[in-house]
Amino acid sequence: MLRFEVAKRDRETKARCGFIRLKGVICETPLFMPVGTAGSVKGITPHELKECGYRLILANTYHLYLRPGHQLIRERGGLHRFMGWNRGILTDSGGFQVYSLSPLRTVTEEGVRFQSHLDGSYHMLTPEKVVEIQEALGSDILMPLDECLPYPASEAQAVNSLELTISWLKRSVEAHQGGGALFGIVQGGFFEHLRREAVSEVTSFELPGYSIGGLSVGEPVDLLHQIGAFTADLLPQDRPRYLMGVGRPQDIVEAVSYGIDMFDCVVPTRNARNGTLYTWKGKLNIKAQRFAQDEDPVDPNCTCYTCRNFSKSYLRHLYNAGELLSPRLNTIHNLHFFSELMERIRRSISEGWFSRLKKEIHESYPLT
Amino acid sequence: MLRFEVAKRDRETKARCGFIRLKGVICETPLFMPVGTAGSVKGITPHELKECGYRLILANTYHLYLRPGHQLIRERGGLHRFMGWNRGILTDSGGFQVYSLSPLRTVTEEGVRFQSHLDGSYHMLTPEKVVEIQEALGSDILMPLDECLPYPASEAQAVNSLELTISWLKRSVEAHQGGGALFGIVQGGFFEHLRREAVSEVTSFELPGYSIGGLSVGEPVDLLHQIGAFTADLLPQDRPRYLMGVGRPQDIVEAVSYGIDMFDCVVPTRNARNGTLYTWKGKLNIKAQRFAQDEDPVDPNCTCYTCRNFSKSYLRHLYNAGELLSPRLNTIHNLHFFSELMERIRRSISEGWFSRLKKEIHESYPLT
Repeated sequence: MLRFEVAKRDRETKARCGFIRLKGVICETPLFMPVGTAGSVKGITPHELKECGYRLILANTYHLYLRPGHQLIRERGGLHRFMGWNRGILTDSGGFQVYSLSPLRTVTEEGVRFQSHLDGSYHMLTPEKVVEIQEALGSDILMPLDECLPYPASEAQAVNSLELTISWLKRSVEAHQGGGALFGIVQGGFFEHLRREAVSEVTSFELPGYSIGGLSVGEPVDLLHQIGAFTADLLPQDRPRYLMGVGRPQDIVEAVSYGIDMFDCVVPTRNARNGTLYTWKGKLNIKAQRFAQDEDPVDPNCTCYTCRNFSKSYLRHLYNAGELLSPRLNTIHNLHFFSELMERIRRSISEGWFSRLKKEIHESYPLT
Repeated sequence: MLRFEVAKRDRETKARCGFIRLKGVICETPLFMPVGTAGSVKGITPHELKECGYRLILANTYHLYLRPGHQLIRERGGLHRFMGWNRGILTDSGGFQVYSLSPLRTVTEEGVRFQSHLDGSYHMLTPEKVVEIQEALGSDILMPLDECLPYPASEAQAVNSLELTISWLKRSVEAHQGGGALFGIVQGGFFEHLRREAVSEVTSFELPGYSIGGLSVGEPVDLLHQIGAFTADLLPQDRPRYLMGVGRPQDIVEAVSYGIDMFDCVVPTRNARNGTLYTWKGKLNIKAQRFAQDEDPVDPNCTCYTCRNFSKSYLRHLYNAGELLSPRLNTIHNLHFFSELMERIRRSISEGWFSRLKKEIHESYPLT
């Protein structure tokens, strides 16, 4: 279902590059997954995603379960076919969305009962149900149901929550029929001894990959990376490590340096819709008056469709006029930037100049 | 600037097919222009417009004058370059938008004073100013400022309005420096003798093309075509005839039968955003429950990007989820349909089966 191979390790850091092989798809790591919440990366087509170089995207189990429903997608031949995407799909467990979107939720040993943010209807997600949904979607990589705690949370809360997450993982592994690769998620809040315990428990299932969850939930950035690095170090070398919900370019390059292989985040797509564009010299906001007359593309060296064809002046006009083309062109640029960022990270590891690249990125994108 | 050539005339009706030659662009007629109000056909790129087969689009002088401003576009090298479209652009006079969008307007002999619908600022459009704006935009085809009356309007109103429109046309012709082709607009309300007088006055300027204005403003459909056909008959054979703001497939094929060569309308693009899709069997609304499980494309014979790649089930899901991809994919389909409609109309005239096609179209799209 999934094979992982480390091709090269950096000498100065713990960064590594390699491959994740899925059924019919080879993904180079470290990789970034654009977020296609409801079976669509907002505003752009599967063909544009390919043109940007992506081979693996993330879709949200919670959203697809509620609308249009996993049974409907299963009957259509699975999510790949439904959305016209023949490369890889990773689905999350829905746990984070229940925690962040649902107006009401109750967590019990059995699972999570919650109210839909769409119509207020009541639903129950159990570990078994979450696996069933992702199997119906036909995901290449599945996440087990977990509990994601807010920051800060007490040690007692974190202990209880971890226990629950581990018991749910056991049930997930039992429920999993074998379609796609089921990862394990390491929780444990911001307590190193709990993260250590979590790794020990989760890796005992000998799963094809491991996610670090419960980070990027509002904690200071140094704490994110302290816990991230601590946890990554404990995970086996021969399995991909996925830092869930991270991140910004500065966070990605930092996390790569302690051995993370996979990332997902809404920042490139959400920021695009807000007019924030990424360049190698930092972010810019296309709304700014100073771009009104600017005939240059967002980045003269960028080879994306947007930069090849349109000026900052025109992009600013589209944004100000509320034109539908605005989020689309901005999203193409940002996803191209993130794809190129990952490509450079991989190349720098392979060729031995990762530390220099990391320093450069942190000059344009300070780690604060 | 503009050369028009009739290649073939239908034997049973007054339909004709031919070419409009602009600087560097040959447009086959009868043709339909998608509306790119603010320098963008909503949601789609110039490349997609080309892929749909379009060679001439319409942009709105009123909108571009207010935002980003015609001077800014002139400094960027004109609208073609600003928006990345190297084919033809026709701009309207702004008169209709002043009449339909501005909260306050005062018409005098000098011109129209109005308040911006964007920020309430006051502006004055004169015939000279409107030509200047369109020359700054670099339009291939320009429209002179005219007054567009509502329906119904009295004969006295129509007489006065026509007199004003003719005096404005005279000033427009004098102001026009020769960049692009300035058309004449025939007004005269719903009074045949005024339309006759208008044609006589307007054609005396020997312009490269003539528009029929003041129709499709709320009148019954039979009256639209009665006045349209009456006016078209009076216009010279060797100039293109443009029926402004029309229309639906049934109106287009009807108007082609009385000798119209050019059309523009927001229906394909606006309807797309509302989920209404055109097919050769009539319109359908993608929201409908009956499409929830429908794995077929909108039209199995359609070769558009949307139909080649996505099912009605997926399009319905995108619409219901409010995904940005929804208006985009729907717009591509509808613009492809309108392009194919015009292509079939041209071919049917050229090959002698236009009447049969007209009957077929009126079966799916009744003329009511």
